[in-house]
Amino acid sequence: MFAVEVRDHIMIAHSFRGAVFGPAQALHGATFVVDLAFYRKSLDQNGIVVDIGLAHEALKAILTPLNYRNLDEVQEFKGVNTTTEFLAYHIFSRMADAIRRGDLGEDARAVTRLRVMLHESHVARAWYEGDLG
Amino acid sequence: MFAVEVRDHIMIAHSFRGAVFGPAQALHGATFVVDLAFYRKSLDQNGIVVDIGLAHEALKAILTPLNYRNLDEVQEFKGVNTTTEFLAYHIFSRMADAIRRGDLGEDARAVTRLRVMLHESHVARAWYEGDLG
Amino acid sequence: MFAVEVRDHIMIAHSFRGAVFGPAQALHGATFVVDLAFYRKSLDQNGIVVDIGLAHEALKAILTPLNYRNLDEVQEFKGVNTTTEFLAYHIFSRMADAIRRGDLGEDARAVTRLRVMLHESHVARAWYEGDLG
Amino acid sequence: MFAVEVRDHIMIAHSFRGAVFGPAQALHGATFVVDLAFYRKSLDQNGIVVDIGLAHEALKAILTPLNYRNLDEVQEFKGVNTTTEFLAYHIFSRMADAIRRGDLGEDARAVTRLRVMLHESHVARAWYEGDLG
Amino acid sequence: MFAVEVRDHIMIAHSFRGAVFGPAQALHGATFVVDLAFYRKSLDQNGIVVDIGLAHEALKAILTPLNYRNLDEVQEFKGVNTTTEFLAYHIFSRMADAIRRGDLGEDARAVTRLRVMLHESHVARAWYEGDLG
Amino acid sequence: MFAVEVRDHIMIAHSFRGAVFGPAQALHGATFVVDLAFYRKSLDQNGIVVDIGLAHEALKAILTPLNYRNLDEVQEFKGVNTTTEFLAYHIFSRMADAIRRGDLGEDARAVTRLRVMLHESHVARAWYEGDLG
Repeated sequence: MFAVEVRDHIMIAHSFRGAVFGPAQALHGATFVVDLAFYRKSLDQNGIVVDIGLAHEALKAILTPLNYRNLDEVQEFKGVNTTTEFLAYHIFSRMADAIRRGDLGEDARAVTRLRVMLHESHVARAWYEGDLG
Repeated sequence: MFAVEVRDHIMIAHSFRGAVFGPAQALHGATFVVDLAFYRKSLDQNGIVVDIGLAHEALKAILTPLNYRNLDEVQEFKGVNTTTEFLAYHIFSRMADAIRRGDLGEDARAVTRLRVMLHESHVARAWYEGDLG
Repeated sequence: MFAVEVRDHIMIAHSFRGAVFGPAQALHGATFVVDLAFYRKSLDQNGIVVDIGLAHEALKAILTPLNYRNLDEVQEFKGVNTTTEFLAYHIFSRMADAIRRGDLGEDARAVTRLRVMLHESHVARAWYEGDLG
Repeated sequence: MFAVEVRDHIMIAHSFRGAVFGPAQALHGATFVVDLAFYRKSLDQNGIVVDIGLAHEALKAILTPLNYRNLDEVQEFKGVNTTTEFLAYHIFSRMADAIRRGDLGEDARAVTRLRVMLHESHVARAWYEGDLG
Repeated sequence: MFAVEVRDHIMIAHSFRGAVFGPAQALHGATFVVDLAFYRKSLDQNGIVVDIGLAHEALKAILTPLNYRNLDEVQEFKGVNTTTEFLAYHIFSRMADAIRRGDLGEDARAVTRLRVMLHESHVARAWYEGDLG
Repeated sequence: MFAVEVRDHIMIAHSFRGAVFGPAQALHGATFVVDLAFYRKSLDQNGIVVDIGLAHEALKAILTPLNYRNLDEVQEFKGVNTTTEFLAYHIFSRMADAIRRGDLGEDARAVTRLRVMLHESHVARAWYEGDLG
């Protein structure tokens, strides 16, 4: 399996509901450095997994609506805990949509799998990895 | 698949037996920066894989008996080479036990897989990844 | 000149006032990975710059009141922009106080200089470095 | 599954053919920091996945003919785009050959899988992972 | 002293003249991850060293003419070895010019010092640090 | 001021004497990733600070007698605590000697300053920086 991974980041505020979160129930924030990997079985005729320029752009397009936001105020996240794990899956879903729409080019439809990893500090990170339907 | 990974470290002395180890047959030491990843298929009702605070504590509890030790003198390691690979598996087993005992909470029993990665220098690391029985 | 540096981190929310901040004028957040370096001309009789255990504890004590907070709501920061640069200086001042109070031990009074570096993402960091009066 | 990973690097020039590459169609270059992981199901009698010394040497032997080269002038790469993905597979194939030849020792024949990851910058990397036939 | 540092990168080809360079006399290439630090004695009225958005843009503007180039073919570099050290100084000079021109805003004229660090691999980097005239 | 920095590492065992070291009074060990920076005011006729190949070799020659050793058994370290700080200065002194002897070439005599940084974990490092006499 081949993979290409690109990196970007967001800086957000949020709070969590649930005793398990302890002091993180208060409004706080995070920098999430985001690594998004695209997997495919074989390379296209150019010798690549995806157009890395389009990959960076597509990731940026997904992250921009989240960047410099208080996620507690984002309509589609109302009532959910925007944990690192949750956000990894959110970004996964959006990139899956982007690939289906052709935002990464026709060749990128051969991408079979994505992994979205969010680094939240030097001692913690989370990811979601899954096949494209 | 979702995953959450936490990081800690130990500083140990040890020696190896076997010509394959060359100069590392002598008593020497290592800092092992330990990344432990917890995998599960879906998030719990709080939107998390595990309670990251408990995850850090459980990892610390596993590492403390090894930290600042000469592993050649640790009873349970007598007669084995405490290689990076071996220690990865040792930590894997201990964390599997901790999850079964409920040290990471009831919800953590849904964790299906662990990966334990030990970074021994800027040019070498080892890991063990396996399913929980 | 000798130096020892320890690392910890905080996860905070805040907003900025001033057109220069663009979208960062909105409430958002950051993980700041904090490196704090202690400088001194010669080592103490133990061969160290500072007791690294006390150094980690003192840094933790300075960071805890900031961690998991919305800095806009912190009384002493009212009316100031809690920029990365500003926070570096804040932590510098608190650690200078801690050394003067003897929190790092008597020997640590020989520390002549501190540097506080905050990593806010994989592409940006800021620091303050200065002599102790 | 156990794994051991070693790191080395190359510094090469090359150009790409195809509009998808944009400005990278011009002759340019890259540092590729190469991580090569060896996987096996169980450890050998010494408690290791591979002889890490031999692993470093075998990787160096594969990289040396590429290092400080203009890949456009390398005979076996004529007519192909030497993308990061392509080079990951090239190194994978060479290491698979080395293991079959016994360059990493007899015990290394138990290695079942390799992953070759090339870091091309702080925001992009690619890898190939596959089973040994 | 306060500092803010921003990061970007270039991917270039070049060759060196001189026996000291050994195999690097051949046409090869490098990724240079570039960290550029701005120093000033006190913060401006917004609490910052420089407008970090303008800092990123100014660095990008300096790097773009070098990116995806064979530096042997760049007119102003004819007859010089474009070593990592040399390029650090080149970028330093260009950023000093940009500050003088006001590209980073009027407030940035209070910047007194720059450091330009180029990471060429995981085991080597070079930098130039100097005062602004 | 120009600088070039090279990286290598050692894996050692040692113990400390003094209550300040707590559990580190026991025999334990460390991986020290060593960054050694060479500073000089201007570049030589080749456009470099030092021959980076010779720099790597000279650092390796200094580290080899320490690597895979129990430092408690090294004759010249008898009666001293081989702290990270102490080892940074030890390596500094040896490299200063090497430069004086001409091991890095005649041109390297223009190096005026060295910094030796030892990373002992992901949360602690120490360094010594000083002028050459």
